[in-house]
This record gives sequence, C-alpha cells and structure tokens, in this order.
Amino acid sequence: MAASAGLVGLAAALHFAGAGSLPSFAACALALGAVAHLIGEATDHLGNYLGPAATGIVQSAVGNLPELFVAIFALQAGLVVVVQASLIGSILSNALLVLGISFVVGGARHGVLTFERQASRMIATLLLLAVCALVLPTLAHELHLPAGEHEQSLSVVCAIVLLVVFLVQTRVMLVHGQRTVPSEARGRLRAWPPALAVGVLTLCGVVAALVSDWFVDALGPAIETMGLSQAFAGLVVVAIAGNAVENVVGIRLAAQGKADLAVSVVLNSALQVAVVLIPVLILISFALGGAPFTLAVPPILAVALFASVLVVTVVTVDGRADIVDGVALIGLYVIIASIFWWG
Amino acid sequence: MAASAGLVGLAAALHFAGAGSLPSFAACALALGAVAHLIGEATDHLGNYLGPAATGIVQSAVGNLPELFVAIFALQAGLVVVVQASLIGSILSNALLVLGISFVVGGARHGVLTFERQASRMIATLLLLAVCALVLPTLAHELHLPAGEHEQSLSVVCAIVLLVVFLVQTRVMLVHGQRTVPSEARGRLRAWPPALAVGVLTLCGVVAALVSDWFVDALGPAIETMGLSQAFAGLVVVAIAGNAVENVVGIRLAAQGKADLAVSVVLNSALQVAVVLIPVLILISFALGGAPFTLAVPPILAVALFASVLVVTVVTVDGRADIVDGVALIGLYVIIASIFWWG
Amino acid sequence: MAASAGLVGLAAALHFAGAGSLPSFAACALALGAVAHLIGEATDHLGNYLGPAATGIVQSAVGNLPELFVAIFALQAGLVVVVQASLIGSILSNALLVLGISFVVGGARHGVLTFERQASRMIATLLLLAVCALVLPTLAHELHLPAGEHEQSLSVVCAIVLLVVFLVQTRVMLVHGQRTVPSEARGRLRAWPPALAVGVLTLCGVVAALVSDWFVDALGPAIETMGLSQAFAGLVVVAIAGNAVENVVGIRLAAQGKADLAVSVVLNSALQVAVVLIPVLILISFALGGAPFTLAVPPILAVALFASVLVVTVVTVDGRADIVDGVALIGLYVIIASIFWWG
Repeated sequence: MAASAGLVGLAAALHFAGAGSLPSFAACALALGAVAHLIGEATDHLGNYLGPAATGIVQSAVGNLPELFVAIFALQAGLVVVVQASLIGSILSNALLVLGISFVVGGARHGVLTFERQASRMIATLLLLAVCALVLPTLAHELHLPAGEHEQSLSVVCAIVLLVVFLVQTRVMLVHGQRTVPSEARGRLRAWPPALAVGVLTLCGVVAALVSDWFVDALGPAIETMGLSQAFAGLVVVAIAGNAVENVVGIRLAAQGKADLAVSVVLNSALQVAVVLIPVLILISFALGGAPFTLAVPPILAVALFASVLVVTVVTVDGRADIVDGVALIGLYVIIASIFWWG
Repeated sequence: MAASAGLVGLAAALHFAGAGSLPSFAACALALGAVAHLIGEATDHLGNYLGPAATGIVQSAVGNLPELFVAIFALQAGLVVVVQASLIGSILSNALLVLGISFVVGGARHGVLTFERQASRMIATLLLLAVCALVLPTLAHELHLPAGEHEQSLSVVCAIVLLVVFLVQTRVMLVHGQRTVPSEARGRLRAWPPALAVGVLTLCGVVAALVSDWFVDALGPAIETMGLSQAFAGLVVVAIAGNAVENVVGIRLAAQGKADLAVSVVLNSALQVAVVLIPVLILISFALGGAPFTLAVPPILAVALFASVLVVTVVTVDGRADIVDGVALIGLYVIIASIFWWG
Repeated sequence: MAASAGLVGLAAALHFAGAGSLPSFAACALALGAVAHLIGEATDHLGNYLGPAATGIVQSAVGNLPELFVAIFALQAGLVVVVQASLIGSILSNALLVLGISFVVGGARHGVLTFERQASRMIATLLLLAVCALVLPTLAHELHLPAGEHEQSLSVVCAIVLLVVFLVQTRVMLVHGQRTVPSEARGRLRAWPPALAVGVLTLCGVVAALVSDWFVDALGPAIETMGLSQAFAGLVVVAIAGNAVENVVGIRLAAQGKADLAVSVVLNSALQVAVVLIPVLILISFALGGAPFTLAVPPILAVALFASVLVVTVVTVDGRADIVDGVALIGLYVIIASIFWWG
C-alpha cells in the first residue's frame, strides 16, 4: 500500500510541477495500476465478511473504476478515437497478448496446459455477442442504412442487451458459488477489518478519479511526443497500461501452472470491458448528452476484434493450450498492432 | 382438427368480407399455423404405415408447404424484400429467439441442459454452408464482380449444391434410422387409417395454398397499417408467424427437460429453410421466369445471419447449454431486430 | 522413378518442340507432380539416416519446391493474379475438395471416421491466423487506411509472424517426436543409400526449376486456349495440378480407413502453403524488388478463404467426420469455384 501511495504521490508531483508529458504519463499509468491493484486487494479482504456473492458484485463494480474514469475524462477531452481504440485494445491485449504470453510461459514450464472448458466456452459466447453488438451497428453506419441514422438509440439498445446478459451471467455464477474472478488469483495474508477495506475502497475511488484526470491531461501531449497515431496509442499504449495488474497476475498464475485461474482472470478481464465498461460508457454518454459514444467504430477495429475473438474461441474450445497457441495469439496481436502503427 | 377448420374458416370469412388488413393478417397467420400443425400430425400418423424413412421424406416435402406457398405468392406480388427477409428471419427466429427461449425455460427448470453434440454439430456445418452460399454471391454482387452479372445462374448452382447436400444428409439419417424431426416431438394418441392421413394431407395442401394467397393479400396493407419497414415485417412478423407451431413445440420440449428433442426440432426447422426452402424457391423462380429470386441479399442480412450461425455453433458445440446461453441468443436476436426496426 | 523421368522427358520434348500450349501445360503439370512425389520419397529414405526431426525439416523445406518455383517464375512473368489465386486455391483445394473427397470415400467405406482432435484443432488455429494475416491487410488496402499505403512493409511483418509461428510449431512437433507429415503416409520398400537420396533430392530441385519454367511458359497461352479467367485458372487448374500427389495420397489413406493420416497429410499440405510458401514468397519478392507480392488480395478471395477455414474448423473440431461433412466441403468448393468461373 505504501508503494501505491508513493506512485500516486509521484504522479501528483509530476502533474502539478508541470513536468514533461512523457514522465507524467508514465507515472500516472503506474499509479492507476497501483490503484487497480489496491481495489482488487480491498475487495478480496471485504470478501471475508460479505461472502463470495456480494464480493463478486463489488469487485465487478469497482474493479473497472480506473478504466471507466479514464474513458469518461478522455471523452470529455474529445479523444473519442483514443477511447474507442483503448477499450477494444483492452479486450485485444488481454485476449491475445496476455493470454498468449500466459500460454507461452505456462507451456514452456508445464507442457500442454489444461483448463476448464465450460467457463471459457461461456466467455467466448459472450465475447462473440459483444462483437456482434459492435459489428452490426458499425456495418449499419458504413452502409448508410436507416438504422445508421439512429446510431445512438441503436447503441443504447445494444448496451442494455449486453448489461442484461452480464447480469444474468453474474447471477448464475453467484448461485453456483463461483466468483467472476477466483479469490485465489490474488495473494493474501491476513484479513483487514471491514472498516479498513471500505475506507481503502472509497479512497481508491477518489484517487482513481484524480489520477485519471492527470492521465488524460498527459495523454494528448504524450501521444504527440511519441509520434504515435491516436489509434495506435489507444489500442496498444493505453490498453496495456490500463490492464497492467491483471496482466501480471494472469501471467504469474500461468507460470505457476494454474492454467484454470490464469485463463479465468485474463478472459474475464476482457469480458468485463466488452459487456460492462463499454455499455456503461454508452449509457453515461447518452445520459450526459454531448458528443455521443456509440458502437459504430472504425470497420478495421470491428473486424480485428471479430477475428481475435474467433481465434481465442478456437484456441480455448477444447480446454487445452500449449506454447504454439500462445505464439499464434501473440502473432495475431502483432499483426493487428502493426496495422494501426501507420493508422 | 376442428379448431384448425375454425381458424381457416375465420380467415376465409375475414378475407371475403373485406375486413381490415390487420385482423385478416392475424387470422391468416393463425390459420397457416394450424394447417402446418395438421400437416405434421398427418405425416406422423402416416409414419405408422410408411416406416420412418419414407415418413421423414414426406414430412420434409410437405412440412414447409405453407411457407413455400406464402413465399411464391409474395414473390408474384413483387414483395421480394419481404420474402428474402422472412426466409432469413425464419432461420434467425428459430436459431436465436426460439432456441434462446428454450434454453432459458429449460435452464430455469433443469439447470444445465445437455444434448447430443454430433447432431447439432452437423446442423451447424450445414447452416454454415448455407450461409456461405448466401454471403459469397452477395459479396460478388456488391463488389460488382463479373459473377455478380450472372447472379441467377450462380444462385441456381448454389441451390443445387445445397439440395444435393440435403439429400445426402437425409439419406445418411434415414439409413441410421433417425428421422429429421423425431416423432416423439409431437403428441399422438391413436393411428389414423392411411386413407384419412393422405386425405388430410391433400386437403391441407389445397387449404395452405388458399390461405397463403389471402395472407399475402393482407400482408402489404397490414405492414403499412402497422407502420413497419418491409425488412422488419419480413424478418420478425412473418418469420415468427410462419413458424408458430415449431416454436411452441420446441419450447414445450425444453420445458419438459427434453433438450435433445428441443434442439433437434428447432435447429432442423432453421436448417430446412436454409437448405430446402430457399433453394427450391430459387429453382422455381428460375423455372417460372419473371422477377428472379437470388441469393444476393442486403449485406447487413447476410452478415447478421453469418454472425448468428457462428454464435449458435459456439453455443451448441459442446452439447451443453444453460440460461446464460439462452439469454445471449435472445439478446443477439433483439440487436438484429432493432437494426431493422429503422430499416 | 523411371515413370517420373519419362514424364519430365515428355514435358521437355513438348516444350522444346514448341507443341501446343495445352499438351505442354498438361505434361508439365504431370511432370511437376512426379517430381514432387520423388522429393517426398527421397526425403522419406533420407529419414532412415537423419531421424524424424531433421527429416521433417528437410521435407518441409524441399516438399514445396515445385510450387515455389512455379510461383516465382509466374511472378516474374507478371501473372500476379494467377499466383495469388493459385496459392489460395491450393489451400482451398486441399482443405475443401481433397478433404471432402477423402471424407466421402472414407465415410462410404468405413462409416463415421474418427481422427485425432488436437492436431486438427492446432492446424485450424494456425490456418485462422494465416487467414487473419490476409484479411486484415486486404481490408486496410480496400478501406484506403494509412496502413494500406505501407502494404509491402505490412506484408513483411505478417510474413515474419507466420514464419515464426511455423518454426515454433515445427519445434514443438519435433520435440514430441511427431513429424509434420507422418512417414507411413507414403509407401516404401527398402531404404536408399544416403548418397542416392541426397543425389535424387538435388536433381529434383534442378528439374523442378526447369519444369516450372516451362509450366509458366505454357500457362498463359493455355489459359487463353481454354477460355478461362486468370482467377479461375489459378484457383482451380493450377492449384489442383500443383497438389496432385498429396491429393491422391490423402484420398487413398482415407479409403484405407486411416483417417488420422489422411486428415494430417491434407491439412498440413494446406497449412504449409499458408504459413510457409506465402510468407517466403513475400520475403523473396521484397528482397528481389520488382512488382511486390503482398497480402492484399481481391476481397472475395479473402472472404472465401475465411469462410472455408471456418467450415473446416467446425467439421474437424470434434475429431469425427462422415460422408455428409465430405459433401458439404465439396459443395463449398463448387460454390467458390463457380463464383470465379465468371471471374
């Protein structure tokens, strides 16, 4: 916790000292990761008092707070392309890059990894649904269909559908005693008193909002300094920075041979972006008015996401994966990222 | 049978009395459902004399008669968009809406439903083939390829391919003693004498032709009265009305926990539209001349169908489904329908 | 070997006698098939001295030599469309036509065929990756994205990714003691001495280069004489001629009920074109300069390939296939070929 506080302090110092955009951007990214880690820890401790059901709900609700704040502030700053790219990049970096590295690391140490097929098949189904909710409105927009003129209403319908499906899935998982992210996925020594856990969570929420604001402030200039396209910055830089914690956790679990947990953490992280974060952002942008955030994205992003989900589905469908699967997933990520390099 | 006769009588009365288009449309839809139900019952009774092999063939041949008549009359009335939309909608409403409701109802009562994987994998393969036979000519048309100028010849080739594949599949199923739609799927008390069964079938054929004519007469004005787009009317209203019987049978079977039969009835119903009804209509329209009925459909319909078949494949591939799968399928149907709402 | 020498002699005679393009084309195609067969035999004999690991590598390296030479000479002759079509056609004819015929022949004799699921799932994953490496650059090109202007650099990145994935897969297979193409797939009586095997291989390389040159010389006029479009000629004629040996071997294995070997030979043949031959050609064309050979192909080819790989994945995913699957695969091939008939 001290390290987290230090990173947040560093980010604050660089922000208010008007430091260069790159160091400020890097410090904010690290601080956001630290806050996300702390939120995970606090909800885990809270789990000792709430039972797995409520814990899962709290975790889903606050676990994506940093990414949500970043997206909201970036939308307000008019960085719509960056937000769309970073959300889809968040799914891609989890489902391709991090899962791929997990399979390579785990496969190198433990040979063929086996994991529960039912859970990953379910996630594949919901990811495919989310992809359809993105591809079809995008196509309606590109083909100038009548529905394309009601882009925002269509996006709201899709958002509600995705949230309903997510709620049903959460309920089914809770009834069956599973948590969305298994608690063993995170190390833990001793339970915090409930007041401490709630206090840390509240504090994290406030800090996440602050640091997200600084992060977005530094984002535009940092992109320019690095000479990146907006799409590449969102798809790769923001996406990887925003998921640093899940990434490290997933890869470490795979290295320990806990393929079940690794696949669950990494794919659930991708799933929550697709069926919670994106729909919530659509509803918020609809409620707040202003520049609408819709599901009509650049077609190449929609196709890249569709192809990725398909490959992940085929890789995970038999509950077995090895180093070759890992390299294939990483390879697809490299191909997609290189398309946006010139983007 | 008395109820069926009553519904047909009502449809006739409303038609000849020149009643408003909406009541006439509704009465015809109900009457068509009743005729379809009666055809199923008569072929089932006939099954006691013919053996499962011939029964399966008769059932395939006459089971889709009402939908076939509606499509032919609607094509003659120039409602090409409605026909294309209603055929694809027939596949979508079966494979997404009805299968989804079946999984939700069955899953709520019986938890995780299990069903035979081989049969649904086979249906998924043939549905994918049918989708390819739709997507590729559509793309050739949209891209203005040379093949796009030979749209009708190309459609005839595709239609023959689909029918050959269907005949081979039927033969394999018959040899293995399976009927396309299991007979237990329909309730039955006592066998009719063969003359009665044949008589009912013949009568049903004539009545189906008459009612289909009245249905198409009422269709155009009814669409206008309801203020619907042609695509939405075909995709949702006509598609659901035209499959009312299979829909109710499928959902009831799932509620009874007979997941195997439910999946078989619902998916075979979708499959027969794809690999029998559509090819037969193409060949009929080619033989009759006039406005050609081809496989070059609006691209958004082709993509929606492709995405749906893919999701159904992933959902059914492991022979297990629960309430979450059901909600996901329904959700995809809602998304697709809402795109055509403004269509 | 005498028969092979005879065919090569015939091709030479027709070429230098300035015979008509059709006989010359046919003789060259047969001679190339004979050379490919001889290369397979020689590497198999070499396998007795090298161990399976090195044998697999040699076989991968020289087995595609004839196709590689044909492609290089055809590119130099400016037949880019033919080369692109013949490479994709090579994948399609293997994965659809030959696999389909194998399933029909094997299924007719032995009922439901079963084969190892893990290997075919792995091949499906890598084929899907290769398809993505084709679809995404094609889309970038068609949508006039910035990346579309760096078509050749993008293709080089994709080629390197595919080659790396192939090398990792080869290494994993070698470590597990499997050869890419099982040696039992080819008949063999007595081991040749190593010097003979190496001598035959060297000779085959030289002869392959010569015959490929004559083949390409005859190709253009032969296409014109037959009145075919360039795309159809590449996709169907060149593709089937270039894979005659694997085709016959695969179908014979299926007829003998060795479904495991048949699927492995046929799908690995398709895979090697996708992840070795195409990437190597891209790198060669980049190194040599001149007209670039890139991954931006006609969109209809990309979609046809994508649909085919998807259908093959669904067909093979459960390690079971019967005559219906075979007919479905052949049907898809017929549909695709007929689109290019007018192409």
